[in-house]
Amino acid sequence: MKVLVIGAGGAIGKAVVAELAPRHEVIEVGKSRGAHRVDVLDSASIRRLFAEVGKVDAVVTTTGVVHFGPLAEMTPEQFQVGLDDKLMGQVKVVLAAQPYLNDGGSFTLTSGIVGAEPIREGANASAVNAAIEGFVRAAAIELPRGLRINAISPTVLTESLPTYGPYFRGFESAPAQRVALAYSRSVEGAQTGRVYNVW
Amino acid sequence: MKVLVIGAGGAIGKAVVAELAPRHEVIEVGKSRGAHRVDVLDSASIRRLFAEVGKVDAVVTTTGVVHFGPLAEMTPEQFQVGLDDKLMGQVKVVLAAQPYLNDGGSFTLTSGIVGAEPIREGANASAVNAAIEGFVRAAAIELPRGLRINAISPTVLTESLPTYGPYFRGFESAPAQRVALAYSRSVEGAQTGRVYNVW
Repeated sequence: MKVLVIGAGGAIGKAVVAELAPRHEVIEVGKSRGAHRVDVLDSASIRRLFAEVGKVDAVVTTTGVVHFGPLAEMTPEQFQVGLDDKLMGQVKVVLAAQPYLNDGGSFTLTSGIVGAEPIREGANASAVNAAIEGFVRAAAIELPRGLRINAISPTVLTESLPTYGPYFRGFESAPAQRVALAYSRSVEGAQTGRVYNVW
Repeated sequence: MKVLVIGAGGAIGKAVVAELAPRHEVIEVGKSRGAHRVDVLDSASIRRLFAEVGKVDAVVTTTGVVHFGPLAEMTPEQFQVGLDDKLMGQVKVVLAAQPYLNDGGSFTLTSGIVGAEPIREGANASAVNAAIEGFVRAAAIELPRGLRINAISPTVLTESLPTYGPYFRGFESAPAQRVALAYSRSVEGAQTGRVYNVW
């Protein structure tokens, strides 16, 4: 398979590339580094990427920023951050890339445990991750030509504990290598409309 | 209790008012009609509303527009409609109204069955409704002073079947009067972080 990994430079992206590269042609895409680049917030940039790389069998997105902060002080502008970035970035990839997937191809998006299991200061992350999962359930029943779409919901990465550990006290972390298995399950499996929880 | 119903002129809003008015002081708020008006997309307008009506014990929102259309043709701008309107309209009410709720007060938001049970052309609605439910789960654990927040997820209204029936073949509809019971359960009950499905 020809697999496009958007966000290939991130902790999850690198692990997904390592998991899939032995068996597939993996094209690594970054925001500001590497041979192939894309701004997922810009549909024209997404279309230019596919004009460069041609049709693919799978698109994996591991990108996205959300706002963390106390609900009592949260502004609509801060709440908008996750909608504009983590949610719309991935949605724009799906909307723009549909014609560039070969029959039977797949999208694999990234949500996160906070969508189902809230934490303090995580209201934006909860809304965004839940939205991604809702979108995946709905897109799955409309995609044509056997195209599939799933989401991976990782718990906090073991590699991210130095930064995010205080938000996730008592949560079991998962190493990126283990999280990457779920992406392989989505890309190389046959299910659609699923959220694979790695937690 | 003093209960503010935003969207009081809509099919659900009217039924919520009818359900609560015999037992509570209900303040009906519309977008363009009635004694009290608010543009929920404008935080300043929300604050002006509360400056008018003072503190309340419950805020109910039954407002919001989403985009319906085929995924294959959906543009990011169309997808944005539901985020800007149904999601951010209700989120902005919660963010701005927190200080105007009396201790132990509640927010009751409106999502919808499509968040959990997708339909054709409903990708935007699924994402938006799921986001509202994710937000409610997260906000519930951060709200201070015993404040509560829940969402009501109605199936298609019996009253809306002439318009929306073709999207919902095989779904059981519910009359607005039955849906209104769930709002009463949220406002007059004691739970928080719940999604009450009326389906």
